[in-house]
Amino acid sequence: MSGTSRIIDVRASILEDNGKNSEALRRSLSGRGVFLVNLMGSPGSGKTSLLAALLPLLSPPLRPAVLEADLDSRVDADALEARGWKAVQLRTGGFCHLDAFMARRGLAELGVLPPEDGIPGVPNDAGPDSPFDIVFLENVGNLICTAQVDTGAHLNLALLSVPEGDDKPLKYPVMFAKADAVVVTKTDYLDREDFDVEAVRRRVEGIRPDSRLFTVSARTGMGMPELARFLQEKIRT
Amino acid sequence: MSGTSRIIDVRASILEDNGKNSEALRRSLSGRGVFLVNLMGSPGSGKTSLLAALLPLLSPPLRPAVLEADLDSRVDADALEARGWKAVQLRTGGFCHLDAFMARRGLAELGVLPPEDGIPGVPNDAGPDSPFDIVFLENVGNLICTAQVDTGAHLNLALLSVPEGDDKPLKYPVMFAKADAVVVTKTDYLDREDFDVEAVRRRVEGIRPDSRLFTVSARTGMGMPELARFLQEKIRT
Repeated sequence: MSGTSRIIDVRASILEDNGKNSEALRRSLSGRGVFLVNLMGSPGSGKTSLLAALLPLLSPPLRPAVLEADLDSRVDADALEARGWKAVQLRTGGFCHLDAFMARRGLAELGVLPPEDGIPGVPNDAGPDSPFDIVFLENVGNLICTAQVDTGAHLNLALLSVPEGDDKPLKYPVMFAKADAVVVTKTDYLDREDFDVEAVRRRVEGIRPDSRLFTVSARTGMGMPELARFLQEKIRT
Repeated sequence: MSGTSRIIDVRASILEDNGKNSEALRRSLSGRGVFLVNLMGSPGSGKTSLLAALLPLLSPPLRPAVLEADLDSRVDADALEARGWKAVQLRTGGFCHLDAFMARRGLAELGVLPPEDGIPGVPNDAGPDSPFDIVFLENVGNLICTAQVDTGAHLNLALLSVPEGDDKPLKYPVMFAKADAVVVTKTDYLDREDFDVEAVRRRVEGIRPDSRLFTVSARTGMGMPELARFLQEKIRT
């Protein structure tokens, strides 16, 4: 396992650097009155559809924008821009997650933070006021890597879609430990799937007792106002 | 990006080692008449359900066994054992994929290969006959990391479930380049989802023209005999 331990050593030192960058990024965003939400979930768990249903409930009074991360394509940014939202697509190439450095770059492109000042990952909080006060970072579709890396967000949401199955907290505990709230999506499938929402609740509580659970359907709008209210409360505190 | 390039350097050297191990593993399995199939897909794409529907169609004449990989839990191995199949659960901890070394360990546990002989990752093909002639490696639920690492399998299958959406080949091209065949699962959802099978076919062909496409439903059994026939042909050639 020498190869694997080499990766673990390098990862540990890089995660330490990222830890500092993400703390600095979070402080800088707070200073500018911008709230960053990190949206994580499997490919196809409904992250973009959730945003399309959620953003109209936040705006106004909030001014939201979106950073979309994918290995390739700009399908998701295009989908949100077609609905009139400001969205920037980040291409990660082979990388299975975003870090604070990549988030920083996208935030500069949104005009939330000024362009980088030569110190990668360390934000510079000079510059004009931010045009947005809540930014959603739609992370790469992945239940593993994304949970291991701090993006600098103030709030971490994990999506779990009904067709994926209610066993996911057992299989991907790191994700459900990181998530401040779990959003069960595509609940319009509950009539067809053997998916036990209460089992998910118990499993999530076993991993992280203070986590909140929301059940939503982007298709029908069910549960969306509750999630919007939760975000609005989080921003105020 | 110095941190990131450090990871890329270490990864490259580890992938080179894994390349040698996986070639050796594949040769050793071929020598023992064992065919290894690597099953990749998102969390909840239906990998275990596919196996539960597929294995009865292969056996007899084939003698199948399963290696299940997850970060944690033994939910999937238990599910298949409850149906009478031999299944070994591999726990990857924080790792988002399997490599040849981990596959080698699971194959030894199945009795397909003898226990390791002190050279990690390099198989030893002495020992009694294998009790199985086809082994399915259900990889970690992930569309990114799993595509980047050779497990030593003879055939790579990528699952794409209908609720995930037909845009996945655009977003995860490395996975669809690696897959010898793409299996569209949960086609019983086609009546509810705006999922275009022909668009998937075109997108996959654009990435890898020789890839095969199957459409199946583990729930109804639709398409399963065709997939079983494809595997039986692959084993013979």
